[in-house]
Formats: sequence, C-alpha cells, structure tokens
Amino acid sequence: MNPRIRTICAKLRQHHLDAAVIFSPANISYLTDYRSRDSVLFVSGRHKVYITDSRYTQEAKERLDSSISVHQRKDSFAQALAMLCADTGIRRLGFEEKHLCVSDYRLIRRCLGRRVSLVPVQGMVEELRQVKDADELKKIKKAVAIASSALTSIAEAIVPGKTELQIAAELERLIRYQGASMASFDIIVASGPNAAFPHHVTGSRKIQRGEPVLIDMGADYLGYKSDLTRVFFSGKITLLARRVYDIVRQAQQLAFAMIKPAVKASAVDAQARGYIAAHGYASFFGHNLGHGVGLETHEAPALSPKAATQLKPGMVITIEPGIYLPGKFGIRIEDMGVVTARGCDILSSRLIK
Amino acid sequence: MNPRIRTICAKLRQHHLDAAVIFSPANISYLTDYRSRDSVLFVSGRHKVYITDSRYTQEAKERLDSSISVHQRKDSFAQALAMLCADTGIRRLGFEEKHLCVSDYRLIRRCLGRRVSLVPVQGMVEELRQVKDADELKKIKKAVAIASSALTSIAEAIVPGKTELQIAAELERLIRYQGASMASFDIIVASGPNAAFPHHVTGSRKIQRGEPVLIDMGADYLGYKSDLTRVFFSGKITLLARRVYDIVRQAQQLAFAMIKPAVKASAVDAQARGYIAAHGYASFFGHNLGHGVGLETHEAPALSPKAATQLKPGMVITIEPGIYLPGKFGIRIEDMGVVTARGCDILSSRLIK
Repeated sequence: MNPRIRTICAKLRQHHLDAAVIFSPANISYLTDYRSRDSVLFVSGRHKVYITDSRYTQEAKERLDSSISVHQRKDSFAQALAMLCADTGIRRLGFEEKHLCVSDYRLIRRCLGRRVSLVPVQGMVEELRQVKDADELKKIKKAVAIASSALTSIAEAIVPGKTELQIAAELERLIRYQGASMASFDIIVASGPNAAFPHHVTGSRKIQRGEPVLIDMGADYLGYKSDLTRVFFSGKITLLARRVYDIVRQAQQLAFAMIKPAVKASAVDAQARGYIAAHGYASFFGHNLGHGVGLETHEAPALSPKAATQLKPGMVITIEPGIYLPGKFGIRIEDMGVVTARGCDILSSRLIK
Repeated sequence: MNPRIRTICAKLRQHHLDAAVIFSPANISYLTDYRSRDSVLFVSGRHKVYITDSRYTQEAKERLDSSISVHQRKDSFAQALAMLCADTGIRRLGFEEKHLCVSDYRLIRRCLGRRVSLVPVQGMVEELRQVKDADELKKIKKAVAIASSALTSIAEAIVPGKTELQIAAELERLIRYQGASMASFDIIVASGPNAAFPHHVTGSRKIQRGEPVLIDMGADYLGYKSDLTRVFFSGKITLLARRVYDIVRQAQQLAFAMIKPAVKASAVDAQARGYIAAHGYASFFGHNLGHGVGLETHEAPALSPKAATQLKPGMVITIEPGIYLPGKFGIRIEDMGVVTARGCDILSSRLIK
C-alpha cells in the first residue's frame, strides 16, 4: 500500500470511520498517482476501490498500482458505493463534504439505507497535500520553468495591434512545445484598462501603444501546476504606472522576506497589504495575497487576512499583490515560492520583473 | 427585466418559492448574458442581485444590465444570502441542489436561521438552456466553424515523429487566432493505442507511421462551445481500421437520419448502438451516443440508452459513436447538429470524414 493511502487509513481510525469515499479528482490523483477523471475512490483499511465507467476502466487497470482494484460501475456511483459498503460491512462512511453536491448526497443517502452512517469530513487529503515531497517539487519546478520561459519569450510579441487572444494563443503553443499538457487555467491577457479587472476574460481587444499588459498564466506538468503574473509595457511607461508598479513589487518583496516556518499566513498577507495601504492604495487591492499551488492551481494554504495556517517547510505558495485602478490599468506581480527550513526559495526568481 | 429571468420568476411562482439562488456559472451566464465566475445570483419577483467579490465588482457593474444590482460580499456567500433573505422577507428559498456542495449547504442552512426554508430544485435553468435561440445558435455555429477550420488545417501537421502535445499546441493556437477565447475542454490528441482510451490525456508520445490519431476538441466563442472528433491517418490505413471506421461512420449517419422533433433521445442512441452491436462490436462502445452543447460542453439533453427526453427544435447535440479496441486503436467520429422543425441540420457537415 502506498504511504499516502496508509496515512489516510490512519486518519480513518482516528475519526472512527470504517471507510471514506473520495470525490475530488485532485485528491484521488494525489492518493493514486494517476490522473483521475469522473471517478471516485473508496478507501477502507482492507479495500481500495477505484469506481469508474467504461471510458476509463482499461486505462485505470493499466496505470493504477495493484493494491487498488478497479470497479466498472453499471449504474450510479451511489449504487456502486452502496454495494461496496454492504459487501465490506461498512457502518460509518466518511465523505468529502466540499466535493459532493446536495443531490448526489441525497441519492447516496437513499441507496445506503439505514445501516450506514454518512459522516462529513473536510480537508483530510488537502491537509496532506499542503506539504510537497521531493517528487512533487520537481514537477512544480518544471511547471514554473515552462511558464517562465513562455513569459520570457512572449515579451517581444507584445506590440501595439496584437490582440489579447493572439498573445494567449502564442503562450498556449509555447508551453505545450515544452511538454506542458495544458495551461493550469484560462490564460489571462488583459491590456490597458482591462487589466483593472483582476480576472479579466481574454478578448479581441488590440494592444495600444504605451499601455500595460497583464498576463496571468501557468502550465500543467504531469498534473502539477504553476501560476505566475507579469505586467509588460509596449512603449513608454507612464509615471503613475511606474509608481504603482514599484509599490506592488516592493510589497511582494516584503512579503517574501518574512516567509519562514511557523509564520502565520495572515501575517504575510498583512505585511504586503499594510505596505500598499501606507501608500494610499488600500481600497485598490481587494483579493488575497496568495494561495497554495500543486495538483490544483488554487489549494491550501490560503494567504489571506484571516488565514490562521502556520507556514511549514515544503509548502508551495504564490505571492501576488495587485493594485487595480478602474478605467486606467492594473498591476499584479505573482511569483511562486517554496517554504524552506529557514525561509523561502523563490521558484520563479529567474523571471525578470 | 430580460425574458429569461422573467421565465425563471414564473417558475418560482409555480414552485411556490419566494426566491431562488443560482450557483451554476453557466446558468448565471445564461440568465444575465454576462460570463459569471465565482459569484451567485439571487432572483425573487422584485429583486435580482449578483453577489460577488472585489475581483469582479467593477466589471459586473459595467456589464450587467441595470435590472440586476451588484452586491460586493464582505463575508461568505452564506452570510450575504442570509442578509438578502432577511431584507426582502424571503421564507421559501429554492437552491440548485446539483450545484451546491454539502458543506456550503450546511453553512447556508445555519446562516438562514429557522424562518427560511431551503427547497432543492433541479434543472430549472438547464431545462430552458436545452433549446437555443437565434443568437445562441449563431455563436455555436461560429464555435463549430472555428474548430472545423482548425481540424482541417491540422491534417498536414499529423506526421510521424510529431508528439500529441505538439499537435494540441498548434490547435490551441489556431482556434485563438480565429477569435475563440479558449478551447472548450482540454484537447484530446490520442495516437495509436492511446486512442483506445476514450478520454486519453494528451501526452508526449510520438506519432508512428500508419496509425490512427484521434483528436477530440472544441472552441469557446463568446461563452458557447463546440465539440468535434475526427480520426486522422498518417500513412496507409489498415484493413481493420478501415472496417471499424466505416461501421462508426455508418452508425453516426443512421443516428443523424432519425433525428427530428418528438423522437426520443434513447431511440437515437439505440439506433447507433444497435448498428455497432450488429457488427459484433457491442462491448467496445461503452459511452453515451451524445449530449447537448451550449454554454457547457456537456449539457442537457443526454443521448443515452436511458434518456427519456423527446427532441425539440432548437436543441443542439453531438452524435459521437466510437469503437475502442484495447491495445490497438480507437475510432470515434463526433459531429454536432441542431434539431429543426423536420429533421436535423448537421453544423459540422463541411468537415470531411
């Protein structure tokens, strides 16, 4: 049995659960080392069963390790699960309440009958995923290198007249040629006033001379993600844009500088937020300072004003302060780092800013 | 008030609901004509409120029509929702049970207190979305044209030695240069034996001479998707591949030929499935025959052995029979059609197969 599943089994015993059903594809991928889609994983002390359908049965059988059996469901997940619980004598079944919708819950509840209790659990796998092992770090570093290289190459393509979508097209192509299976998320290319929307939808607007162009992108390498943001200027930089850029960069640097084990995530957020506020831009930085990155682009820990998490070595996080001036432009700088025994290694340090 | 929201208000009255909260981004986009992300929509007879956070407030205010007010939440959705219900005297609140996870449900339940009943609803918006209006059809046709053109252009790039990811890279680039904002889903390029996995994850395998390469892809044009599959051959086609290809193509043609209003979706599935079974390949075609396409790549109606839906003019669907021979190859042909008053218009008919 692999060590990750062994840890989950230990957690089951702690929670007095006979078994758990894992719905989150990222959590299943983490536990099985196989990119799961549209399937669920049943874990008890004695049985590990991957419940899937005909589209994936063959692939799953070939790629899952032999300790996990593959069950091709004929009816709903709920029925397959109920059958498994009956066959293996499960009485208390944990389920991921953040990854199950109310209608599926009601269906499972009905199928299980009275003998089985459904017990909500949260973050059982996500907690483990926060701290990356050497193999995960290697993949994340490669995902960062791919995105960094694409952002470096794209600089010369950012010229007046090009559309946001054309820039995104080139980036998509660049990352795949370096072995990324896809982008981590829909690439954001936001030109001029569009960059004032932190999550702009890339469109057909043409880049104008002298305006900032914000690019937020990442690559997926063997399931692991990167997430980086840079702002490019095509032509002369205005004084205001330069001033805002420097504030954001400095806020980011201060945040990175205080990262080390046992520091609270909220304190890191407060550091950058305080600096931006001190320069009069408090109301123009509304989102969190950062987040964990791994099998998902956004995962634990959050770096937010309320985040109580204490940082630990091996956590991989983004630091991405921003200032958004409606109708004008927006500046965000986002880098990724890994918490080390003494501080933080910035993974994207080779990418100019 | 826009007619789609007016229809929802009529449904609320039918269900004796004072209001409903919409969580599905696609459903919100449909009702508001604005690409929603990370937000929820509250609809009562008198109030339409878009609940969002600072990342989207500015954009939402500019782009939503004036009948919808924008509320920037400070705490959780649950708290914002509870406040709205209290302010507007809501006693029975409908919620989309397929789009709300159990933990959020429990949080909302707690915040609402005893005075408000939470009533599960299903498919209230999805049902409307099945039948496309003229404007939606125009966008879908453009999404089909973009994907068709990319698939046509890519044929010459499918040569021995190219990797699956390189092909996907070119396709991603091609669709954006034609104005697609992104791919509808992760492009599948499955070469040789990889094509025997209906949902292969595109990887770094190099194409070999003479083997089939299956490409399943679509474009997103202004929020509307396309979804098409073609199999390409680099070199001589084996007799077996030719035979299987002809069976799949004929099965698809028979299915399209019987589409017209009032025909049951399950009957169309049975037509293609029966033909494949009659040629001895029943156990090599496990998935549904097709599905609706619109704001989501997979939406209602399903064309499956159990689908009771009767087809209606304006429904846009895929027909995608497949035969998968483990260890050898797989053939799937997928086209999109719109149900008309008398039959079916194949939207991707210009794409050679």
